Amino acid sequence: MCGIVGIVGHSYVNQAIYDALTVLQHRGQDAAGIVTCDGDRLFLRKDNGMVRDVFRNRHMRRLVGNMGIGHVRYPTAGSSSSAEAQPFYVNSPYGITLAHNGNLTNSEVLAEHLYRSDLRHINTTSDSEVLLNVFAHELHERGKGKLRPEPDDIFDAVAAVHRRAEGAYAVVAMITGYGILAFRDPRGIRPVCFGRKDTEHGPEYMVSSESVALSSLGFHLERDLAPGEAIYITDGGEVHTRQCYDQPELNPCIFEQVYLARPDSIIDDISVYKARLRMGEKLAEKIEREWPDHDIDVVIPIPDTSRTSALQMANRLNLKYREGFIKNRYIGRTFIMPGQQQRRKSVRQKLNAIELEFSGKNVLLVDDSIVRGTTCHEIIQMAREAGARKVYFASAAPAVKFPNVYGIDMPAASELIAHGRTTEEVCQLIGADKLVYQDLEDLVSACQEGNPEIREFDCSVFNGHYLAGNIDQNYLDDLEARRSDGAKKNREKSRALADNEVIDLHNSN
Amino acid sequence: MCGIVGIVGHSYVNQAIYDALTVLQHRGQDAAGIVTCDGDRLFLRKDNGMVRDVFRNRHMRRLVGNMGIGHVRYPTAGSSSSAEAQPFYVNSPYGITLAHNGNLTNSEVLAEHLYRSDLRHINTTSDSEVLLNVFAHELHERGKGKLRPEPDDIFDAVAAVHRRAEGAYAVVAMITGYGILAFRDPRGIRPVCFGRKDTEHGPEYMVSSESVALSSLGFHLERDLAPGEAIYITDGGEVHTRQCYDQPELNPCIFEQVYLARPDSIIDDISVYKARLRMGEKLAEKIEREWPDHDIDVVIPIPDTSRTSALQMANRLNLKYREGFIKNRYIGRTFIMPGQQQRRKSVRQKLNAIELEFSGKNVLLVDDSIVRGTTCHEIIQMAREAGARKVYFASAAPAVKFPNVYGIDMPAASELIAHGRTTEEVCQLIGADKLVYQDLEDLVSACQEGNPEIREFDCSVFNGHYLAGNIDQNYLDDLEARRSDGAKKNREKSRALADNEVIDLHNSN
Amino acid sequence: MCGIVGIVGHSYVNQAIYDALTVLQHRGQDAAGIVTCDGDRLFLRKDNGMVRDVFRNRHMRRLVGNMGIGHVRYPTAGSSSSAEAQPFYVNSPYGITLAHNGNLTNSEVLAEHLYRSDLRHINTTSDSEVLLNVFAHELHERGKGKLRPEPDDIFDAVAAVHRRAEGAYAVVAMITGYGILAFRDPRGIRPVCFGRKDTEHGPEYMVSSESVALSSLGFHLERDLAPGEAIYITDGGEVHTRQCYDQPELNPCIFEQVYLARPDSIIDDISVYKARLRMGEKLAEKIEREWPDHDIDVVIPIPDTSRTSALQMANRLNLKYREGFIKNRYIGRTFIMPGQQQRRKSVRQKLNAIELEFSGKNVLLVDDSIVRGTTCHEIIQMAREAGARKVYFASAAPAVKFPNVYGIDMPAASELIAHGRTTEEVCQLIGADKLVYQDLEDLVSACQEGNPEIREFDCSVFNGHYLAGNIDQNYLDDLEARRSDGAKKNREKSRALADNEVIDLHNSN
Amino acid sequence: MCGIVGIVGHSYVNQAIYDALTVLQHRGQDAAGIVTCDGDRLFLRKDNGMVRDVFRNRHMRRLVGNMGIGHVRYPTAGSSSSAEAQPFYVNSPYGITLAHNGNLTNSEVLAEHLYRSDLRHINTTSDSEVLLNVFAHELHERGKGKLRPEPDDIFDAVAAVHRRAEGAYAVVAMITGYGILAFRDPRGIRPVCFGRKDTEHGPEYMVSSESVALSSLGFHLERDLAPGEAIYITDGGEVHTRQCYDQPELNPCIFEQVYLARPDSIIDDISVYKARLRMGEKLAEKIEREWPDHDIDVVIPIPDTSRTSALQMANRLNLKYREGFIKNRYIGRTFIMPGQQQRRKSVRQKLNAIELEFSGKNVLLVDDSIVRGTTCHEIIQMAREAGARKVYFASAAPAVKFPNVYGIDMPAASELIAHGRTTEEVCQLIGADKLVYQDLEDLVSACQEGNPEIREFDCSVFNGHYLAGNIDQNYLDDLEARRSDGAKKNREKSRALADNEVIDLHNSN
Repeated sequence: MCGIVGIVGHSYVNQAIYDALTVLQHRGQDAAGIVTCDGDRLFLRKDNGMVRDVFRNRHMRRLVGNMGIGHVRYPTAGSSSSAEAQPFYVNSPYGITLAHNGNLTNSEVLAEHLYRSDLRHINTTSDSEVLLNVFAHELHERGKGKLRPEPDDIFDAVAAVHRRAEGAYAVVAMITGYGILAFRDPRGIRPVCFGRKDTEHGPEYMVSSESVALSSLGFHLERDLAPGEAIYITDGGEVHTRQCYDQPELNPCIFEQVYLARPDSIIDDISVYKARLRMGEKLAEKIEREWPDHDIDVVIPIPDTSRTSALQMANRLNLKYREGFIKNRYIGRTFIMPGQQQRRKSVRQKLNAIELEFSGKNVLLVDDSIVRGTTCHEIIQMAREAGARKVYFASAAPAVKFPNVYGIDMPAASELIAHGRTTEEVCQLIGADKLVYQDLEDLVSACQEGNPEIREFDCSVFNGHYLAGNIDQNYLDDLEARRSDGAKKNREKSRALADNEVIDLHNSN
Repeated sequence: MCGIVGIVGHSYVNQAIYDALTVLQHRGQDAAGIVTCDGDRLFLRKDNGMVRDVFRNRHMRRLVGNMGIGHVRYPTAGSSSSAEAQPFYVNSPYGITLAHNGNLTNSEVLAEHLYRSDLRHINTTSDSEVLLNVFAHELHERGKGKLRPEPDDIFDAVAAVHRRAEGAYAVVAMITGYGILAFRDPRGIRPVCFGRKDTEHGPEYMVSSESVALSSLGFHLERDLAPGEAIYITDGGEVHTRQCYDQPELNPCIFEQVYLARPDSIIDDISVYKARLRMGEKLAEKIEREWPDHDIDVVIPIPDTSRTSALQMANRLNLKYREGFIKNRYIGRTFIMPGQQQRRKSVRQKLNAIELEFSGKNVLLVDDSIVRGTTCHEIIQMAREAGARKVYFASAAPAVKFPNVYGIDMPAASELIAHGRTTEEVCQLIGADKLVYQDLEDLVSACQEGNPEIREFDCSVFNGHYLAGNIDQNYLDDLEARRSDGAKKNREKSRALADNEVIDLHNSN
Repeated sequence: MCGIVGIVGHSYVNQAIYDALTVLQHRGQDAAGIVTCDGDRLFLRKDNGMVRDVFRNRHMRRLVGNMGIGHVRYPTAGSSSSAEAQPFYVNSPYGITLAHNGNLTNSEVLAEHLYRSDLRHINTTSDSEVLLNVFAHELHERGKGKLRPEPDDIFDAVAAVHRRAEGAYAVVAMITGYGILAFRDPRGIRPVCFGRKDTEHGPEYMVSSESVALSSLGFHLERDLAPGEAIYITDGGEVHTRQCYDQPELNPCIFEQVYLARPDSIIDDISVYKARLRMGEKLAEKIEREWPDHDIDVVIPIPDTSRTSALQMANRLNLKYREGFIKNRYIGRTFIMPGQQQRRKSVRQKLNAIELEFSGKNVLLVDDSIVRGTTCHEIIQMAREAGARKVYFASAAPAVKFPNVYGIDMPAASELIAHGRTTEEVCQLIGADKLVYQDLEDLVSACQEGNPEIREFDCSVFNGHYLAGNIDQNYLDDLEARRSDGAKKNREKSRALADNEVIDLHNSN
Repeated sequence: MCGIVGIVGHSYVNQAIYDALTVLQHRGQDAAGIVTCDGDRLFLRKDNGMVRDVFRNRHMRRLVGNMGIGHVRYPTAGSSSSAEAQPFYVNSPYGITLAHNGNLTNSEVLAEHLYRSDLRHINTTSDSEVLLNVFAHELHERGKGKLRPEPDDIFDAVAAVHRRAEGAYAVVAMITGYGILAFRDPRGIRPVCFGRKDTEHGPEYMVSSESVALSSLGFHLERDLAPGEAIYITDGGEVHTRQCYDQPELNPCIFEQVYLARPDSIIDDISVYKARLRMGEKLAEKIEREWPDHDIDVVIPIPDTSRTSALQMANRLNLKYREGFIKNRYIGRTFIMPGQQQRRKSVRQKLNAIELEFSGKNVLLVDDSIVRGTTCHEIIQMAREAGARKVYFASAAPAVKFPNVYGIDMPAASELIAHGRTTEEVCQLIGADKLVYQDLEDLVSACQEGNPEIREFDCSVFNGHYLAGNIDQNYLDDLEARRSDGAKKNREKSRALADNEVIDLHNSN
């Protein structure tokens, strides 16, 4: 998970990109970066950390120019190392900077090929650096002898990227001195939209992972990019779009609707907020249908994401809705003192139960989904300690049984509590008195109601059906090996050694 | 507003104090500090900033010892400068460190007197440094010739402080090598409670501004300190308490219940959460009573504090409750570029309206209180732009008409929108179609139901009745001069010049 | 002025490069950088500041690999901005990093051409980035289809660089995964040598601006690179050298001998120390010749550079040699307080006169050269205040009358005190009782004695005869405009604004 | 070894104190601090590090006021921990800040007594904190009831300090709002002088460890403080001095003349520069006397301190003087890579030999003194490798055989190469062909010639005769245990753990 943004404006865009990244911060708290363009000069700042920590006055002062792109990164545990911040840069041709959200499933093959065919050195294991070089190579081939790339050159290069790259990607790139480009993979798995703001100096344009960044900054949402489509906005404000793939099909990631996106975003014409209301409704209907004589006294959400569904669920079931858990807004660290071992921050430091709302009651806890199940288990115990008589648990999403290969940082299959287990077994493991999962068709239809033209969502984490990228068992086994907790621990260890000091060419701090 | 904490444990207390400060972070995000005691050595770390920023690994490693106190500071714009972090230290007698929440209304007189009678130099304008020196002086007088102060010496010194200090104060102090002391002003305006945790090595004790810090760390709330009472816990774990004032009376600040405290805290035996539910109920009853034919379609809270009251209000009025505003969880800064002027972050960067919930509806927005009214006005406009037909506004607290002199950072009287205005006038200024304030007696009874033994709350911001500290018109005029926006701007300017570089004896960074 | 170094070793080279840069620190205190290569990965650290400040533990830990290059930078006020640290990087072909000492006199034309012919974006005004891209482009042309560049490809590319680049340059570059390259411009204006150290794992190789870095690290000086020559050391330790220019001629910069180089270096077979002894001797002979009846009592050097010549001068003249000036080893800053103006640090904060050695005596002060003359003037005044009866001044170099265009940071012609003035006029301006300049033929022969095969030195600052780079009056006028104090002040101002926060692609801090 | 400074001026003194500390930096590079006084407010900045690193713009901006004191610290390995920077502060009485150079030999007893008699808590193991509290206590006793301390109160308090404190101390202190005080121990072991500068607003006064700081800042040296004497300069510019001890005697540390002080300082009326010339002369005379048929070809100093003596020695012996060693001006660190052990920086990284001056010659190397002998040994080997035929060694000071207890950081007796060894044995250990030590009477007379009124110098490191502080064998054994290399290694280890993060009350960084 990452967030991307790009703006072509009529005055310095640094503050606007910064604000947009703040709005998109929920998509990645691991690293942040902005590159701006002033004439033929680029100015870059990127580092590990949250937006508020990465950008200081002294950095912002240098980020001059009316055009720029930005990125927030969530460590995609998938096929790429998490050591590098974006945007990335290559100087040939033209000077191109790029940031992306998603995951290339064939990035190793591509990297190898880039070196063999074009002698392009890739200095990190980030698939973004690979993607940038593929695009740069293709544009170089088409742009030969042209001092200024034409929109068609650019779109031809995007089309070539679509032919070579596999997986999911929503990309924003800047061609130094000329303009900003964005494109979306041929299945539209990851979101990207664009908008416009009219100013006294003429229209300004913005592309963003989510529409909420547009509206927060006073831009009007024009529309999402279609799968396979590209948009190119010149520094003069001309807008070009083209479909760059032969047989595109829109299969957006349904997890954006469940959990990833902000409720006030609209993705592929679906209001996330409304979709979540409908998830609550469908879940309520399932309970009415399958458990008509339930004895639930009160519906309590696990803050924050599930509040929308839980409230609607309570309404539909005609039950009381209560915010029985208070979330700690400020999260501290656990320090390792010499000679001590790392203690795990328990859920209790993140949530606090209000006894009044649990004492002597049958409570229905609602969360958006269940991944590893460990948090779930602790919360249910907290509810019991707060005096609950019965603790039921509802998940607004179906059972998560398969790993994600399209850019969401999820554990290996073996660590998913529902992987290879029945609902009954999961219920017992988390210690609930009853567990209700949303049915997949209900989730799909809750989302589809917002945009009936979407015939199929990417639901791979629920059904194991991978639409893009030739995912076979080999790929998944390899992933399992890299993502398992053991493997992660090793990576974390070596990362701790490096003490967060990523010093290579693309993050020379 | 500040938060204080103190722990006497059986192992290093640095992490526990850090965690407690994180839980109390809502009481002050301006500065943080911890001092620990190991044998006869003190270790201190304090600086401007939030808890997560002030304490790094290298600091925590040095904060050794089984006893310590901590502080988070909100800049009390009242009578003291906001330039100094706590705790403060004096080396004579014994080495005493102290942190406090509140405001001394006679600190200038006290400082003058300290110098004249005891030649004690006060290096800041912080009333905490004054309070510490008053206490130190009094303890020195009583402790003469005693290498170890007896509890009665300490309590006698607290009694002397009560006689000399005016205003509101909840204090935690540490006597190097001996123990931790806490005391509360004779009217108990500011809160402080203590708790206990039984470990295999014996009981550990903790004092804290709010009970939620106790429960988060696994301490059991024993009780609040009574007004005028002091508690002294020796490093060996003996607990001594004594009433140190002749005619104490409990008049706690009612604004803690309205807004300041976390809902999951219990203050003076009142569950803040329950009190807020009752505030919602009373407000609903007022609407039913005075506006029986209302045409409200939906109740929408202004996040976060008012959610509890708003939900209960909706229940009582039998109306739909909807979270129509989404709060941005991540707040960025606005940078000043050379040649630019500071732009005000509008409310729009903090809140986002979900159109669905406003479009074509009569909405009742609920907030905990209205202070300046500017935010209010912007939110109402946002609701209208989101399509609301009518926008009604309810405040869970009565009209705020008078300044606070007991440690809450509130604007000068002249900047309070309700100061000298009728409800009708305020309604018009904020642009609402109707405005409903809680009645003061309803607010009081909503709180009193939790603890009927409290005969009178400090309600001075609502009724201008100042119970402590000999507040006369002179004092208020002086306050007005210092707190007005103009005065503040000057202070901010000079502070900006100093650029957060507080370098004096008590914060020698 | 800059210093360069490159090492191919059998274990990590980070500490060795760091130590070498420390030894070369006198060649540039403005910025420092190291890039190392481990397999096909590069690790870079560079920033403004001195070596000891730029590299911290956390940086060194990341600089892994057995091969690497380093750079210290003096701001070449010449034709390039001073905002960027080296080494620079391009990813195509192979991934190449490069650092250089010198100045390209046609870098603007080259940059323009690079973009036009190869679409290579240059993001800074540094001629090093230009040089790197010229080399990369030429190597790409020759390396097409070759996964591993052959030595002849590399040398052909160097030959092409020699044909295109004008000016002075001593270069070290690294080809990722393959080896380290160094080359010297066809007139050998700037120095570069290489050496070898035999270890139990086989020989290690090092290239360096000065031989003193070799000897300090236990390397044996093999020889200087010939003008136009290149050396390529593979990561496996094979050494290839080739002359890459048709009619090379050795015309080394004579100012290295006068002032720039360390006395314990040997450059182009000339011991700098011995050359300086001879300078003192020649100067003494001139005095004996032209001023046989002088009344000098004592010879006093201006520390540190001139001590060697001054001592020999005293010996030859049979006069007492005394260190009458003590140099402050620690230099502090002058802070600008709000509302104050920058005060100039006077020479008095750098030097202190010992009255004993001046009182009542006729002193001959000796410096290596006179550039602006302001320091000179102050020192002579100090000597008088310390009681000197007569103050004579001798310069081990002739009058500096013309600007440097080959990489030494010197003021514009109009700011050189000797530009357009007679010795008599200069003597009067600096306030000396007599001024003696070395004759140019004496300086040349003092150096030539060390290596009689050098037929001509670059003496352009003394005689205005520019051997390389087609320097015409237009070029010099342009230089004058950019280097004059006024122009500098503007640059400094804009740099102050940026507050040393160079944040662009090649120094993304 | 430390440096102290204090200034009472007519405008802000921060820059002047900063400049003075830079000039005194050779007396301590370990930590630095400045405290200034503006009205009744103090502003402090202190931290570990060199002056240029400790004070940044943001710190200097806060150090306002026309009066202040400063300190640079060398870690006195003696009886005190090296963890704390100065100045120190106590708030009672008046607010006093203090910095000192020297060592109290009874500080532990004093600290104990301070707590017992006055309940004053001492939070560090620094004898400066003890000294400050002794003085504060004595002044409090005398100042009772006085809002402004009279000069006589202050001098009485100094007299009391003289009665209680043992050892060596040169002290500067500031009484908030009133003035600056300096005093010197009754034997005047450590130096301190004062000076005056006349400005248009009246005279300004400065006290300093060495006169060179006065002259660099344009102050005129008035005189040294007499042993036991105190000077008090009020903020209004009145100067009071008084002898505060009954039987003072001047026994200054002779090592200041040999090595510690800058040559351009005058201490107790002795020009250090001239004293060193005389040391060279005496040493030459000894050689002529005892070794008339020597075969020395050239005299070569070990830079920097010994240059003055060596040059005069060569003159007297009528031999050539040559600077055969070049000193690296820039010293880098040795980094510890994971899994590596600390490598010792050899002398070769600090010095470089010029072969020409050694090849085939009999050289006489001259150093100021020989302490451990290890450096000596390496240098002699370097001389041989550079081709010297014979290597003779001369020390301008006699054999160092005993530890220092008056504030100089020297190793334990057992680690002094001359401890318990004959000259012959030392000569063999360092590998010289001949070793010549200065005779003690010659050293004394070389110094005494500058001020014949000094009857006895502190020469304890040479003769084991401790004039002050009741030094007995117990004290020395205890010292030995603490200072031995083993003990040091432990301290260094625990210090490394703390990683320079001194966080206690007096350095709350």
